[in-house]
Amino acid sequence: MHSPLFLLLLQVALIVALSRLMGLLFARLRQPQVIGEMIAGIMLGPSVLGAALPAVQGWLFPSDSIALLNTLSQFGVVFFLFLIGLELDPKLLTSRGRSAMAVSAASIALPFALGVAVGVWLIDAGVFGAAAKANPLASALFMGAAMSITAFPVLARILAERNMHATDVGTVAIACAAMNDVAAWVILAFVAAVATAAGPGTALRTAGFAAGYVAVMLLLVRPFLGRLRLVYDRQDRLPHGVLAVIFLLVLLSAFAAEAIGIHAMFGAFVAGFIMPKAGTFVRSLTEKLEDFTVVLLLPIFFAYAGLRTKLGLLGADPRMWAYAAVVITAACVGKFGGTALAARAARTPWRE
Amino acid sequence: MHSPLFLLLLQVALIVALSRLMGLLFARLRQPQVIGEMIAGIMLGPSVLGAALPAVQGWLFPSDSIALLNTLSQFGVVFFLFLIGLELDPKLLTSRGRSAMAVSAASIALPFALGVAVGVWLIDAGVFGAAAKANPLASALFMGAAMSITAFPVLARILAERNMHATDVGTVAIACAAMNDVAAWVILAFVAAVATAAGPGTALRTAGFAAGYVAVMLLLVRPFLGRLRLVYDRQDRLPHGVLAVIFLLVLLSAFAAEAIGIHAMFGAFVAGFIMPKAGTFVRSLTEKLEDFTVVLLLPIFFAYAGLRTKLGLLGADPRMWAYAAVVITAACVGKFGGTALAARAARTPWRE
Repeated sequence: MHSPLFLLLLQVALIVALSRLMGLLFARLRQPQVIGEMIAGIMLGPSVLGAALPAVQGWLFPSDSIALLNTLSQFGVVFFLFLIGLELDPKLLTSRGRSAMAVSAASIALPFALGVAVGVWLIDAGVFGAAAKANPLASALFMGAAMSITAFPVLARILAERNMHATDVGTVAIACAAMNDVAAWVILAFVAAVATAAGPGTALRTAGFAAGYVAVMLLLVRPFLGRLRLVYDRQDRLPHGVLAVIFLLVLLSAFAAEAIGIHAMFGAFVAGFIMPKAGTFVRSLTEKLEDFTVVLLLPIFFAYAGLRTKLGLLGADPRMWAYAAVVITAACVGKFGGTALAARAARTPWRE
Repeated sequence: MHSPLFLLLLQVALIVALSRLMGLLFARLRQPQVIGEMIAGIMLGPSVLGAALPAVQGWLFPSDSIALLNTLSQFGVVFFLFLIGLELDPKLLTSRGRSAMAVSAASIALPFALGVAVGVWLIDAGVFGAAAKANPLASALFMGAAMSITAFPVLARILAERNMHATDVGTVAIACAAMNDVAAWVILAFVAAVATAAGPGTALRTAGFAAGYVAVMLLLVRPFLGRLRLVYDRQDRLPHGVLAVIFLLVLLSAFAAEAIGIHAMFGAFVAGFIMPKAGTFVRSLTEKLEDFTVVLLLPIFFAYAGLRTKLGLLGADPRMWAYAAVVITAACVGKFGGTALAARAARTPWRE
């Protein structure tokens, strides 16, 4: 009876309101606002609202409407990562390039090794079921890849919240995360290839296409964008035509990345990264996109993560909770340890 | 195999690119850009691309992805109408109020009468099939209502394109269209009630709720919004918290309107209309929302109209084309005639 728009308006209103409230609460507790937003999602999802009032939760978030919410939230996160890429200054990056590379390599290697180890142990314990025992290599690699992937948008959001994303530290962190995650997606493609016995060719193709795509963006598209800035400099404002070209670039770059098999959000990030940085161009573009994206669309993305989470799946079995604790600990140790050691080796001060 | 995001990115990129191109072409021909955007939709839809390359069209726009595109486009049009309401200055309206009322009444009465007449004739000719003959009153009223509804977003877009929406004429035109369309939706509710034999109670309830909703917005919500402006004036910028409240207002107002049975876009329009107008508040809010809405989301809405249009449905039968011509002529005569006569009677110069 209700149109999809009817439900969507109500869902987005609920998410924006509750995310804001929880965000404020967490900001007061000096925790990242984004954690509050994810908790807002868990509250609206099956774990809290669904457990307390299943009929209300089922009416508010029927499963087919969830798919729509998911697509809308990814659409928003694409523009968010464009903005993050946009504010990243390549000059800060080249001077720090070497340390970033080292940090990146270590922050992916240690969690990956730990993930594989935990994976082997969990498979032995039978947590993944019989199917995983049949193909232990794929399952262990999957755990490794899952642990190496930074929640790239979460990191970007925390840094943006604290206005650190335009600083040296923030730039290195985001550049590391971007490199990491592309590597992790390539590993995942490799895992998928092992699991489906398609051979490593698929993974190599993904890596090859990804490299080719980045080369095209840097060498062909970037010089063209310099001209857009000339139009902007001449008129001192962003006409709708130029904006349409920029939107088109974001959409097509995200589409290309998604088609290659690395996530659409990296395409958007790269599109932002290659934008001309000088002058007020970046600032006026950011002003035009930031609020719609960050205040309206982004909370949907983070809440969506919570909306899908079924804490109840862990169930009453204490062993499952113990396994979850081991996985989380291994993930934290891998991330912090690997990153800190590598950064130390590159003589970055501890505090950063 | 492809995620919905994959298709959506490609679809939106195609729509934005083609709409922009057709818009530029039509602007050069001194026609409203929005007509170009609708033609872009027809080109991508079943009438042109679907006729030439049915496989490509079916791959690009499968029917389930169309529903997603529709919801996204309506989401965009909600924010567009918020912006239109935002830029409408109530002061211009009260001084012109009486002439607007007269224009509105006439511009709905004449098309309605003509629509009913054409409806009766078409029913006699059997164009609507046997079902319509069984319930001629409902069918005739439906034609009347269909002819009285202005394409509100199309009007707003044409006026905004020409920067006329903040002038006296534009204000009267938009206010008329808004009143008209609410009246027409109430008539449609009445028609639906007649058709389903639910009795006129439903229509009265819709009208009553609509009146109550507008009263709540004007008398309760509006004074509260004055405080938001005070926050803005103190800080001279729009903090994210204030923006979140404004987004929430737009979403909930649109939701309420949709729930009542008048379209969500009127809720958004009313939310914009009751915003505080003084100072730079309106301008900085507009700047933050306009480009994302107008350049990215709005073309989807207009293209969507074209995407659904199946010109081929009119078929090879010349009589159907003749009927279509009669309907279009009656619609034009009704609209122009009714509006012009009423405005003349209110001593508005012809040119307007």
